[in-house]
Amino acid sequence: MIVLGIDPGLAMPGWGVVYKGKTDKLTCLAYGCMKTYPKDTLADRLKFIFTETQKIVDTYKPEVVAMEDIFFLKGSKVIATIGQARGALISAVVTKDLPLFEYNPRTIKMALTGYGLADKYQMQHMVKTMLGLKEIPKPDDAADALAMAICHINTNRFTLKK
Amino acid sequence: MIVLGIDPGLAMPGWGVVYKGKTDKLTCLAYGCMKTYPKDTLADRLKFIFTETQKIVDTYKPEVVAMEDIFFLKGSKVIATIGQARGALISAVVTKDLPLFEYNPRTIKMALTGYGLADKYQMQHMVKTMLGLKEIPKPDDAADALAMAICHINTNRFTLKK
Repeated sequence: MIVLGIDPGLAMPGWGVVYKGKTDKLTCLAYGCMKTYPKDTLADRLKFIFTETQKIVDTYKPEVVAMEDIFFLKGSKVIATIGQARGALISAVVTKDLPLFEYNPRTIKMALTGYGLADKYQMQHMVKTMLGLKEIPKPDDAADALAMAICHINTNRFTLKK
Repeated sequence: MIVLGIDPGLAMPGWGVVYKGKTDKLTCLAYGCMKTYPKDTLADRLKFIFTETQKIVDTYKPEVVAMEDIFFLKGSKVIATIGQARGALISAVVTKDLPLFEYNPRTIKMALTGYGLADKYQMQHMVKTMLGLKEIPKPDDAADALAMAICHINTNRFTLKK
């Protein structure tokens, strides 16, 4: 099972690909972020995010996508910005026929640390440990995306196909 | 010049295609809406909106897209919902290499009626009149989309290629 986690955003959406085979071991296949620039138009930034996401899908061939949901966000401008980026990201994966699973921040924290109010450091430390990485993945957006992929695997551990 | 106007939304985004040739005459080529259902997942609804929009582009071959902007909206849930739909709609047209123009509601009203606070009836009446239609286009979302296309033509009347 290969899971693509996506941390939605307009300026720097993060992504991370995690593989789980027959054992409990999780392997990080790749991670990164899609940096866009405020000097560019919204249309150009969404186009970049859409096409980069489809390239990631083509390269790593995930079977499912995990993403943080949107309804916990506050502030009209933040919601409008992340909402539009999210629309582009979701379009990019669903037009590749990938199923999408959405998780709220509390569920993601619970799935990684067993504690729904875990802080950023605790989360990043667990991402590093669970994936057997030498360092905490950077930038934060990529670590968050890997956390979403791990969350999907951990919350579906008994039902996922190997 | 063929302009595709889009009224962004998740439940029933409207669309309308307007042609302007060498004369001042505007012709409505087609209009409609892409109805989605709350029983379906967000992913399925965005996929439908994305693919339908690309079908409209392939069928009517617009050269430019006009859309209402988002920043006048109020209410977190409304903004999140329309924002995500907007992300899918914009992705669909920009990946077809169409330029996107965004207009705020006041500009659209000014461009059609000369009055920035025109009501819905005045706007729909002007859409009907300016396009030489026998009836007001239905549903409202389609009439709004046609208004956006007309707005783009009217605000660029002296610079548009024929």
